Amino acid sequence: MMSTAAKTLRHLVSMSDLTREHIEEILHRAESLSSQPTLEGKQIALLFYENSTRTYSSFRTAIHRLGGLTCGFAGTAGTSVLKGESLHDTIKMFEEYADAIVLRHPRDGASRWAADVSSVPVINAGDGQNQHPTQTLLDLLAIKRTQGRLTGLKVAMVGDLKYGRTVRSLSQALSLFEDNELFLVSPPSLRLPLDQVERLQERGTRLQHCQRLEDVLSEVDICYMTRIQQERMEDPDEYERVRGFYRLRAKDLVDVKDNLKILHPLPRVDEIAHDVDRTPYAHYFEQAKGGVEARCAVLDLLIGGPL
Amino acid sequence: MMSTAAKTLRHLVSMSDLTREHIEEILHRAESLSSQPTLEGKQIALLFYENSTRTYSSFRTAIHRLGGLTCGFAGTAGTSVLKGESLHDTIKMFEEYADAIVLRHPRDGASRWAADVSSVPVINAGDGQNQHPTQTLLDLLAIKRTQGRLTGLKVAMVGDLKYGRTVRSLSQALSLFEDNELFLVSPPSLRLPLDQVERLQERGTRLQHCQRLEDVLSEVDICYMTRIQQERMEDPDEYERVRGFYRLRAKDLVDVKDNLKILHPLPRVDEIAHDVDRTPYAHYFEQAKGGVEARCAVLDLLIGGPL
Amino acid sequence: MMSTAAKTLRHLVSMSDLTREHIEEILHRAESLSSQPTLEGKQIALLFYENSTRTYSSFRTAIHRLGGLTCGFAGTAGTSVLKGESLHDTIKMFEEYADAIVLRHPRDGASRWAADVSSVPVINAGDGQNQHPTQTLLDLLAIKRTQGRLTGLKVAMVGDLKYGRTVRSLSQALSLFEDNELFLVSPPSLRLPLDQVERLQERGTRLQHCQRLEDVLSEVDICYMTRIQQERMEDPDEYERVRGFYRLRAKDLVDVKDNLKILHPLPRVDEIAHDVDRTPYAHYFEQAKGGVEARCAVLDLLIGGPL
Repeated sequence: MMSTAAKTLRHLVSMSDLTREHIEEILHRAESLSSQPTLEGKQIALLFYENSTRTYSSFRTAIHRLGGLTCGFAGTAGTSVLKGESLHDTIKMFEEYADAIVLRHPRDGASRWAADVSSVPVINAGDGQNQHPTQTLLDLLAIKRTQGRLTGLKVAMVGDLKYGRTVRSLSQALSLFEDNELFLVSPPSLRLPLDQVERLQERGTRLQHCQRLEDVLSEVDICYMTRIQQERMEDPDEYERVRGFYRLRAKDLVDVKDNLKILHPLPRVDEIAHDVDRTPYAHYFEQAKGGVEARCAVLDLLIGGPL
Repeated sequence: MMSTAAKTLRHLVSMSDLTREHIEEILHRAESLSSQPTLEGKQIALLFYENSTRTYSSFRTAIHRLGGLTCGFAGTAGTSVLKGESLHDTIKMFEEYADAIVLRHPRDGASRWAADVSSVPVINAGDGQNQHPTQTLLDLLAIKRTQGRLTGLKVAMVGDLKYGRTVRSLSQALSLFEDNELFLVSPPSLRLPLDQVERLQERGTRLQHCQRLEDVLSEVDICYMTRIQQERMEDPDEYERVRGFYRLRAKDLVDVKDNLKILHPLPRVDEIAHDVDRTPYAHYFEQAKGGVEARCAVLDLLIGGPL
Repeated sequence: MMSTAAKTLRHLVSMSDLTREHIEEILHRAESLSSQPTLEGKQIALLFYENSTRTYSSFRTAIHRLGGLTCGFAGTAGTSVLKGESLHDTIKMFEEYADAIVLRHPRDGASRWAADVSSVPVINAGDGQNQHPTQTLLDLLAIKRTQGRLTGLKVAMVGDLKYGRTVRSLSQALSLFEDNELFLVSPPSLRLPLDQVERLQERGTRLQHCQRLEDVLSEVDICYMTRIQQERMEDPDEYERVRGFYRLRAKDLVDVKDNLKILHPLPRVDEIAHDVDRTPYAHYFEQAKGGVEARCAVLDLLIGGPL
C-alpha cells in the first residue's frame, strides 16, 4: 500500500524532496520488491555525463531486475557526442525515447534543472558536489537492515565531513528520525560546515565532534567511513599526522558492540584494511548490494505504477 | 498488407533504393506498429564507427520496442578495438551474431560496400557525407503527420544546402511526390549544387532560391532548418553578415500559416532560439520522437517478416 | 544428461581446469542448446578491462540467446572509472549484481585470482598472455564439426607458436585426445617452447617441426593459422625473408585433402588472402560463429543449472 505522500513524488533530485514517510515507503518497497516486472516493456535512459561504474551498474541491474531495458550513454564518450547540444535539448530528446531519465552530471544543480524541463521523471544519480539521493537511500537501507530501525542509533561519520556529499546527505536524513546521536570524526580542517551542524541540532540530533576514530569506536552502532583526499587538507603535514586516525584495521575492532556495522560508500582506497572484510562488522559490500534494491524501489515508486 | 515492391527490399543503404511505394509502406507501418514483438528473440548489431548518440539511441529504442536486443559498439572505442581488421571481416563477424546490421561509418559509400558483402540486411545509419536514409524517413514522417500529406506542399529548406546531406536527401524524396514547391534559403556560397537542382526540376518540383528566411516564412507549410557551420563559408565576413538571416526567433513567427511546422534534424546550436520551443510551430522534438517509429518500420520491413 | 565431472566445475579459468570429459560435455551442449532460456531473469557481468569486440560481442550474444542480460563495461573506459579500486573490490561489487562474471584482463593470472575471491562463477575471457579457454573450446568445436571427431587428426599450427596463447592452448587440448599429429610450422625464432613440446610428447602426441607451410599443407585435416607480429621476431630481416611462408592464398590450395579446413582465431591481417574466403576450405567465419555456441554451453554448464 502506498502512502499519499509517496504518490505525489514526481522526480527524485534531492533528499530534501523526501519526507520521512517517503523514505519509509521506499525502504519498505526495497524489502518487498523481488523481481516484479513493474518496468516490463519500459525503457529508462541512463545519461551519465561522467563515469561512475558502480552507480551505473547498480541502476542498470535494478532496471533489468524489474523487467525494463536501458538506453543512453556512460561517461565521456557521451559528452563528446553531444558536444554543442545543450542539456535542455538532450533531455528533450531522451524524454521522447524513455519512460524516465537517470542523470549523472558533473555540474551542481544539473539534475534540478533537468527535472524542471523534463516531461518524464528524472532521478539524480549524482550532480557534482551537490546530491546523490539514491546513495543516501541505500545507506539508510543498510542501517535499517542491520539495526532493525532508524531511530535511537549512535552513528560515527568518519573522514572528510566538509566536502563529502554522502556524509552530509546521510546526516540530514538521519536527523528526520528521533533520538539519533552522531559522532563527527574528522581532522579540524575537514569538519562538518557550521550551517549543517545547526540544521542537525535544530532537529534535535545530538552531535559530538572528535578527531580520533578509536575514541568512539566502542560506542557506536554504525561506523560510516569515507575517504580523506590528501589534496583536500590545507596543510600537507597535517595529513601525514592524522591519516592513521582514519584507517581502520581488524585489530582496532576489539572493544566494539556486537551489532556494530561498518559502512562505506565505496570505492575504498586504504581507509579500510582488507583484513576488516573477514570480520562480522564489515557490511560495505552488502550495503552496495542494497543499492540495487533501493534503486528498484525508487524506480518502482516513480514509474512502476501502483503495486 | 505489404506491397510486393516493399517485399523485395533487402538492405536500406540509400534513399534512392526506395520507390515512392516503399516510402509510403514504411510511413504506413510507422503509424501502425505499436510495440509489436516482431523482433523477439532477435539481435541486431549496432556498429557505430563514429559517435552519434541520437541515432544510436533511436535505433536501440526501436529495437527494444520491437522486442529485440542489441550488440556491437558505439563510437571510437569500437574502431580502436578493431584496428587492423577490415570492415569486410567485421561485417562477416557480426553477420554471424546478428539478424541485421545497422552501420554508421565516417567513409562515404561504406554502407553500400557492407551491404554487398553481408548475408544479413544492412541499414545505413549515416556514411560520411553520403546518405542517412532513416533521417529522411523520419523527416517525411513528421511532414506527413503534421500536414496529412506529402504532396502539394510548400517547403523551405534553410541553411547549408551545399554540404548538408539531410537537405539534399529530403529534397530528392519530396520530388517523388507531386506538386511540391521548395524554397531554397541559403547564402550564395552554400546553395544547392546544380546537379541536384536539375534532378529536382526534371521531376517537376518547383524551386525558388532566396537568401533571407523572412522572405518566405509566411508562405510555407514546412520550414526545415539546418545548421550553418562557419568554417564551411568561403568568406568569414559573409558569415557574420548573413548569420542573422538563418536564426529563427519566436518574434519572427508572426505572419505565418496556422499549419506551419518547423523541423530540424538536431542537434541545433543557435539557429533556433529557445523561445521558439513554446510556439505551436515547433515540431523538432516530436520529429525526433518519430525517428523511433520510422526505424521500427524499417527494421520490421527488412527483418520482422510479414505482419 | 550431465556428467558428474562436469557438474563439479565452478569456474572456467584455464583449459587445464577441464578434463576430456568436461570438453566433450561442453561440445555436446554447444551442439544441442538452441536458444533455451536457461539464463532467463539472470544477469551476467562482462568486465572487460581491455577491449576485445569479438569476444565481448560473442559473450553478449550468447547471454542474450539464453535469455539473460548483461552489465559491466567494455574497455578502457571501465579501467579509468575504477581507478584506485582494487580488482578484489570490483569483483566483490559485481558478485552482488550478477549471477556470473566474465573477466577480460591484461594481467596474466588475473582471472585465477578473481575466481579465488568471487562468490559467483568466473569465466576467463582472456588474461594477458596466459589463457583464453573459450577460444580453445570454439576451436575444438570447429574441428569436431568439420571432421566429425577430435582424434586421429593431422593438424598444422602455423605462425607464432612461441607467444601465441591460442596455439599453445589448443595443442594441449588436442593432446587429451588420442592419435593426433601436430605439424608445428613457424620461423625458428618463434618455435613452440621446449616445455610445451615435452608435455605434448609425454601425452603421446606426435609432432613435426617445419618452416614452410607448403611442405605440410597437402597432408593435414586442419590448418590453424595465426598472425606473426613483426616486432616479435628477433631479426627484422628474417621477417622479410619468411613472411611469404605464412601467407595463404587460394592458389596454394591445390593438392589438399577434400576435408581440409582452414581456421584462424581472427582478426586476420594479411596471413590469409581474401581469395581464400571463397574456397570450400575457409572455415574461420563459421568458426567464430561457433564461439557463441561454445560460450552458451559454458554459461549453461556453470550457471544455467541442470538441463
